[in-house]
Amino acid sequence: MNPMPELHVVLHPRHPPAVDTFLRGIPEIVLHCPADEEGVIRALNNGAQVLVTFIWRDAFLTPSLKWIAGTGAGTEQYPLDVLSSHHVVLTTAAGVHSDCVAEHAFSLLLALTRRIGESVRNMTQHHWGALVGEELAGKKLGIVGLGRIGEGVARRAQNWGMSITGVKRHPDQYQGCLTDVRGVDQMAAVCEWADILLLAAPATPDRRPLVGERELELLGAGWIVNVGRGSLIDEAALIRALRSGGLRGAGLDVTAIEPLPTGSPLWDLPNVVLSAHNAGDSPGYGRRWGVIFAQNLLAFAGAADWRNQVTGLPGGAR
Amino acid sequence: MNPMPELHVVLHPRHPPAVDTFLRGIPEIVLHCPADEEGVIRALNNGAQVLVTFIWRDAFLTPSLKWIAGTGAGTEQYPLDVLSSHHVVLTTAAGVHSDCVAEHAFSLLLALTRRIGESVRNMTQHHWGALVGEELAGKKLGIVGLGRIGEGVARRAQNWGMSITGVKRHPDQYQGCLTDVRGVDQMAAVCEWADILLLAAPATPDRRPLVGERELELLGAGWIVNVGRGSLIDEAALIRALRSGGLRGAGLDVTAIEPLPTGSPLWDLPNVVLSAHNAGDSPGYGRRWGVIFAQNLLAFAGAADWRNQVTGLPGGAR
Repeated sequence: MNPMPELHVVLHPRHPPAVDTFLRGIPEIVLHCPADEEGVIRALNNGAQVLVTFIWRDAFLTPSLKWIAGTGAGTEQYPLDVLSSHHVVLTTAAGVHSDCVAEHAFSLLLALTRRIGESVRNMTQHHWGALVGEELAGKKLGIVGLGRIGEGVARRAQNWGMSITGVKRHPDQYQGCLTDVRGVDQMAAVCEWADILLLAAPATPDRRPLVGERELELLGAGWIVNVGRGSLIDEAALIRALRSGGLRGAGLDVTAIEPLPTGSPLWDLPNVVLSAHNAGDSPGYGRRWGVIFAQNLLAFAGAADWRNQVTGLPGGAR
Repeated sequence: MNPMPELHVVLHPRHPPAVDTFLRGIPEIVLHCPADEEGVIRALNNGAQVLVTFIWRDAFLTPSLKWIAGTGAGTEQYPLDVLSSHHVVLTTAAGVHSDCVAEHAFSLLLALTRRIGESVRNMTQHHWGALVGEELAGKKLGIVGLGRIGEGVARRAQNWGMSITGVKRHPDQYQGCLTDVRGVDQMAAVCEWADILLLAAPATPDRRPLVGERELELLGAGWIVNVGRGSLIDEAALIRALRSGGLRGAGLDVTAIEPLPTGSPLWDLPNVVLSAHNAGDSPGYGRRWGVIFAQNLLAFAGAADWRNQVTGLPGGAR
C-alpha cells in the first residue's frame, strides 16, 4: 500500500518519545527531521504535505500542507476555523497516552500525600528526617474531566478506599466506573466536598480557569493535581493558597506558561511537585501513536476512515 | 473499667504520630513522657509496668515491667526468649499502618517509574526538563511478603494492568486476591520474571538478605522498592547495581543502617528515592493504634483477650 509515491512528512523537532523511530520505519514516506522551526517552515514551503507536531505556528500553514498528524491530545493551540477553511485535516493523539497520564496523575498525588517531594529535597541535603504523610484511604477525590485520562484515574482508584465524584461537561453521556458524576455547574459543590481535586480536562474553550480563588477556598486544606492544562487553574490564586497554608499541596504537570518561568515561586514551594509536561511520555508512545498514524496514512490515500479527526474533509484529504 | 488504680505507662520519646495524644486521653493510666531514654529507664526502675515503644534497650527490662505495648509492626529488635522467661507480654502494632505503608510503597514505585525524584531535583535547579517515564501497565510485579502490607499493595494494583506474583513463606496459607503465590525458594525465578520487585516482608530470622547480587542480576533492568526492612537487601550489591545502570531504580523507606549514614552513596544517586522509615506515619496512626491498646488494657486486667500478642502469658500479664 503506497498512498503516494512522494509523500513528504515533516517531523517537528519537539515530539514525544519514539515518534521519530516509528516514522523512520515507514518506507512509503519521505521523512524530514529539521533541527528547528525554521527548517519545518522551509520543508513545508518546499511542498511537504504532512506535518507531525503538537506545536502550532501560523507560518506552518503553507499551500502544500494537507494533514497535521498531531502528537498531542489537545487542539487548543490550533486555528481550527482556518484549518477547516483551508481543507487541512487535523488528527490528534487522543487516547495514546491516557494510561500513562493517569499513572502520572497518581504519582503526583501520592508524592503530595506521602511527601515524596520533601523527602527528595531532604536527600539533596543528606538529611534523614521522618515526615508524617497522609493516607488516601478515607479521602474524597473529585476528578474533573472524565475522558480517557480521568476515567483511567477513576479505574485505578477503585481499590484505594476513596469516595470519588466526577465532573464532566455532559454527565448524561458518562459511561464509566463512577456512580456520581456531575456537570461543570457543580464545580463549587465538588470543591467544597473534596479533599483532593484532580484536573484531567482539556483547556476550556475560552481558556477561562475552572479553578480560581473561590474554588481553592472551598477546597480548603486539600490537595490539587493538574495533568490537564495550565490554564485550568488561576495560577496566582494557587500560589497564594499554597503560601497561606490553606491548600496542602499541588502536583502539577502543566503550568500557565511552559516552560515555567525561572522566577516562578512554584519551583521552591515545598508543598509543590512539578513535572515538565511529561505525564504522557513513555517509551510506548511512538508505537501506539504509530497505530493511529498508520491508519490515517491509509485514510489520507482514501483507503480507510480517519481516526481522531478534528478538521478537514471527511473522506480523505485530497 | 479501671484495670489498676495506679497503672504507670512510660512512652518512649520516639513514637509514631498521635500516640501521645491518644494516651493522654486515657484517665485510667498515669502517663510518663520522658524526654530521653535515661528518663525511660528511670521510670521503669521506679515501678512503671507498661512501656510503649518500638525501640528496645536491655536496660528497659526492669522487675516492674509487665507489658511492652509495641508501636511498631516488627519484633526483630526484641529478645523474645528473655521476655518470655520474664513473663513480659509483648504486643505489636501489626496491621495499624498496613494501608498507609501500602500507599507509601506505591508512591515510591510511581516516583521511580514517573521519575518524580529527578523532577524534584530539577525543581531545586529551577530547571524545566521533560523526562520520559515508564508505565506500570503491562509490567510484571513481584511482591515479596504477603502480610497485610503486601496484600494491600496487591489489592491496590488490581486495576493497574500489571501481572502480579507473590512470594510468601507459607504460600499454602495464602488467602488473598492474587492467583500466583510462591514460596521463598522461588525468589530467583520471581526476580528473573519480574520488572518490579517490591519487598513488604519482615526481617528474616537470621537477618540474611533475601535480595543479594544474584537476585539483582536476575531482576536486571528493573526497579526495586523496599518498605520491609533494610536487612532484606544486600545494600552494597544494590549500590553497585544502581551505579552500573543495570538496575533502573530503587525506592527505599528502610536502609541497612538507620538513619542512613551521611556518607552513603544512596543520597545522591538520581535513580534512588529515599524516605526516612516513615511509610507508616499518618495522622490516623494514634487512633488506630489506640484501638489495639485499649483492648490490651482490658487484657492486662484479665478482662479481655490480648490482641497482637507475641510473648507472655496468654490469659493476662499478672
